[in-house]
Amino acid sequence: MTLNKRNRLVEVSRTLTMVALGEAFADVVIKNGILVNVYSGELLEHMDVAVAAGRIAYVGNADHTIGAQTVVIDAAGKYMSPGFLDGHMHVESTMLSVTEFAKAALAKGTTGIFMDPHEIANVFGAEGVRLMHEEGQQLPLKVFTTFPSCVPATNGLEDAGASLEVTDIKEGLQWDKVVGLGEVMNFPGVVYGDPKMCGEIEETIKSGKTVTGHFPSDDDRMLQAYIASGVTSDHETVTREQGLHKVRMGMHLMIREGSAWHDVKEVIKVVTEDKVNTSNISLVTDDVNPQTLVEKGHLNHVVRRAIEEGVDPVTAIQMVTINVARYFKMEQDLGSITPGKCADILLLDNLQKVEPSTVITDGQVVFDYGMLTVDFPDFVYPEHIRNSMNVKRELTPEDFKLVSRSNQEKTKVNVINVIENSARTEKMTAMLGVEQGIIQPDVEQDIIRLACIERHRGTGQISLGFTHGFQLKVGAVASTVAHDSHNLIVMGINEQDMALAANELVKMGGGMIVVENGKVLAQVPMTIAGLMSDKSLLEVVKEVAELEKAWKQMGCPLNAPFMTFSLIALPVIPEIRISNRGLVDVTQFKLIEVEIG
Amino acid sequence: MTLNKRNRLVEVSRTLTMVALGEAFADVVIKNGILVNVYSGELLEHMDVAVAAGRIAYVGNADHTIGAQTVVIDAAGKYMSPGFLDGHMHVESTMLSVTEFAKAALAKGTTGIFMDPHEIANVFGAEGVRLMHEEGQQLPLKVFTTFPSCVPATNGLEDAGASLEVTDIKEGLQWDKVVGLGEVMNFPGVVYGDPKMCGEIEETIKSGKTVTGHFPSDDDRMLQAYIASGVTSDHETVTREQGLHKVRMGMHLMIREGSAWHDVKEVIKVVTEDKVNTSNISLVTDDVNPQTLVEKGHLNHVVRRAIEEGVDPVTAIQMVTINVARYFKMEQDLGSITPGKCADILLLDNLQKVEPSTVITDGQVVFDYGMLTVDFPDFVYPEHIRNSMNVKRELTPEDFKLVSRSNQEKTKVNVINVIENSARTEKMTAMLGVEQGIIQPDVEQDIIRLACIERHRGTGQISLGFTHGFQLKVGAVASTVAHDSHNLIVMGINEQDMALAANELVKMGGGMIVVENGKVLAQVPMTIAGLMSDKSLLEVVKEVAELEKAWKQMGCPLNAPFMTFSLIALPVIPEIRISNRGLVDVTQFKLIEVEIG
Repeated sequence: MTLNKRNRLVEVSRTLTMVALGEAFADVVIKNGILVNVYSGELLEHMDVAVAAGRIAYVGNADHTIGAQTVVIDAAGKYMSPGFLDGHMHVESTMLSVTEFAKAALAKGTTGIFMDPHEIANVFGAEGVRLMHEEGQQLPLKVFTTFPSCVPATNGLEDAGASLEVTDIKEGLQWDKVVGLGEVMNFPGVVYGDPKMCGEIEETIKSGKTVTGHFPSDDDRMLQAYIASGVTSDHETVTREQGLHKVRMGMHLMIREGSAWHDVKEVIKVVTEDKVNTSNISLVTDDVNPQTLVEKGHLNHVVRRAIEEGVDPVTAIQMVTINVARYFKMEQDLGSITPGKCADILLLDNLQKVEPSTVITDGQVVFDYGMLTVDFPDFVYPEHIRNSMNVKRELTPEDFKLVSRSNQEKTKVNVINVIENSARTEKMTAMLGVEQGIIQPDVEQDIIRLACIERHRGTGQISLGFTHGFQLKVGAVASTVAHDSHNLIVMGINEQDMALAANELVKMGGGMIVVENGKVLAQVPMTIAGLMSDKSLLEVVKEVAELEKAWKQMGCPLNAPFMTFSLIALPVIPEIRISNRGLVDVTQFKLIEVEIG
Repeated sequence: MTLNKRNRLVEVSRTLTMVALGEAFADVVIKNGILVNVYSGELLEHMDVAVAAGRIAYVGNADHTIGAQTVVIDAAGKYMSPGFLDGHMHVESTMLSVTEFAKAALAKGTTGIFMDPHEIANVFGAEGVRLMHEEGQQLPLKVFTTFPSCVPATNGLEDAGASLEVTDIKEGLQWDKVVGLGEVMNFPGVVYGDPKMCGEIEETIKSGKTVTGHFPSDDDRMLQAYIASGVTSDHETVTREQGLHKVRMGMHLMIREGSAWHDVKEVIKVVTEDKVNTSNISLVTDDVNPQTLVEKGHLNHVVRRAIEEGVDPVTAIQMVTINVARYFKMEQDLGSITPGKCADILLLDNLQKVEPSTVITDGQVVFDYGMLTVDFPDFVYPEHIRNSMNVKRELTPEDFKLVSRSNQEKTKVNVINVIENSARTEKMTAMLGVEQGIIQPDVEQDIIRLACIERHRGTGQISLGFTHGFQLKVGAVASTVAHDSHNLIVMGINEQDMALAANELVKMGGGMIVVENGKVLAQVPMTIAGLMSDKSLLEVVKEVAELEKAWKQMGCPLNAPFMTFSLIALPVIPEIRISNRGLVDVTQFKLIEVEIG
């Protein structure tokens, strides 16, 4: 079935009024369901929803809107919920194109996303943003974009493939369906008056759009300065106390449950124990990988998690519907089953499982009986977007050897300690052996070699370091998904495998790879900007499963280790990261030496 | 003290961040109060609020922001609430200029209003709107305008002094601080596709602003059609059932407590008994007269009434702060005591009385110890605005005699029955005597003569009718405040007094008057458009008290009868009204005969 045209309210309001008044018939009537009323906070039984021209015309007993041509959908015993809206997420993290992601998300009840395509922006700048945004506009999933604010994520700490300036943001904010500024990660820049950060915020406020935030610190004064700058949300909260404080300070609190971090359990206590007003709280995914999409779902999983933690189901659903729509000033079109709104409606058998049996967008059934029921148009990325690797030379084992500055047999080094299911890292130190002037990894201590190679401009720049926590025992892994600059990161025990992993990824056009003893164990090619696959969800899931299996085989016990790995170069979340320029102490926003003293 | 400059957030955010971080000192710190946190819904003790450049820089322990020049206000034992925002009101109803109204409102804790100046619009069109809007912009009260949508209120049922077309609305929506479309009273026009109504709504939605409504009917299908047209609020709800239904249908429910109608008692049951989510509900005044301002207060009285009916005080305050700001998409500037917002703050001794002891706007104390503490700038209306009466001839007693079409001694007539404290009227019938071909009033039955005289274009047009409910025994009353066309309405027992009342009002330049046996008992001159006095609140209160006394003296027992009277010509609220063209059946939106059969 081909997709219905999506209509603006003013184009079809006369059609809607005629249907409501009984002067014309509805296209679709969903009969006799239990309405999740996100405005009143109630469950209302025996309700119908009449739909015309893709929007809701009437709610209640809609018999007067049913004509011979009206499609009647029986919802007896089922819950009718507004479609779920993800207020903050990065499509790139799913490793899928927007189209393939949309198929997976719709099947799980996500009917709208507010994406921040800052991964592709770091590779291809505004052009990358525009391409993903345009891909989104032809889908039954409603794709809104918050324009990436921090590209590159930091100043002087790393080299990305592109940068976005205030003028780019100003232009992007004028595109249709660009609804705000993407997570402003450079919070020190904001509070200390960095002209680029302040200029972007100013342009967004002037345009009447929403400035979304990112504040992973505990510093109260800095938080309040950040809010006073005009940033109005945060999704980096990991403790109940931080969450409560942010709600009190007027921030829209986005509680996150992604694949690699699980914040709901702790932060939802703001709702279940502190019992604050929930109208300014939402649930978001931020980053989910394809496995999670298949195994747990998308936003519906986050809703389910909130309900499991004791949140009333209607309240949980408010946090992915009306609260999100209101935050983005889109309440007139989205977020509720009330007259005039887009007919984005889920039918759910129960409110604990949160698994839609039927998904309707713009009044059209797009998912039913476990299957997608509409045709998704193709979107082809230009050739240069599919050829994003620019590393001019073959890498050799020598490239991965870190020379000690001392003459001792042992030397003290800064190490990036990763934490399972968390976006944070910890700065730790370790004593490592030095052999022939080269600092050695130490499998016993779980201290492993790490490298970050510039891959956008062919500069050949490499920085080296060490990690703890992954517990690899052999081989090497590499990835061009390396937030946010998406350089080429490589980690491993032996430098031959590291070189092979890197070289294979370059050949492949980017992606992720696992290598052991000169052999490729698994790989996920990601030809779209080195960030996304052009394959279907199930193909990518299979590839990723092989990848994860290979990580495990080499000793890593972590949940979704490749996601934790992909954050190792993200110098905006504390405490310590690596970039192509070197080790970054994120608490101080400066480059530091690997070797101490 | 002269007024502080009001700053946009982006102009001063760097100042705010410096204060929050402790790099600069605050201008003002309110110390150690109990914070009404409208986001979390909590009362938080021992809180400070640091203010700089008129906005809030920091909330919590603000000792680090106090320097030698910082003014410290002790709030120990006091509640600190965001200033109250009135989401729907007509300044003209106070009979005061915007400036004099602002003085009264600020003293009662109203720091922002969303006014719909549709009274002056009916007399002077867009020019009138612009003048009141401009007057509002120089005041410490924040004055936002919703541009009048229905001028005249109806098509073909009355003649106002001016009309506003879609092009006027489109232009007005571009003025700074015009935040939406004023109450769209012509709801049949909206749902049946009247091009003017639909055009206005379309322009408002396109501009990203808010379409405010007015829906006094019980017709569910029409309500849903109205909502589907893009109208998002209503303040005409008088029953719990209507209120609950509107909340469920996604309307922003404005619960009204004005001088002449008291809807809180009934409609607040949606909150206290149905216990719906309150985030989309607010409290408004709509129309208050000067007596109410002095005796009961302004919006604080509505809050108090809600609390008296059992609403939690913090919830009640949310309904005049954050809920209103959010509805008008102004949450970034208004509605809470959180960083970055305008420092509009009330200090309250307790949350039952809701009487502010100190009122702060833009960080400046404007009311303290029972007195205003800042200078209000003058605003002078142009001469032609102060000369709005255009009735070319003297009125005579003959003008008020209604000739019977029958030859009987008695005839059956339609009568407007007024209801105390309600904006509604009821259509009733009565048998009246006919003497010398003239239908006679009947004091026994409380059936009194009524007239509406066109006063804008000197056409001399008069329509006649009868009322029930005022219980006047002698004399006559007249008013140029006659919603919404503001023609000259006259009511009375004897036609000599009716003519005198009318002629005196014309001479005076408009206002209200009470006449008995050829003598003026009381009068309130209103030289600004025949709608507002140029005197101070206390002078007007005194005049109005005399006026009310005179009404009573002539037999009328109603509360604020002149306000009920002023609605007698408003053909948008059911069931029956008079206009200069004749009797109007509002349930059918058509002119009807006085005499039946």
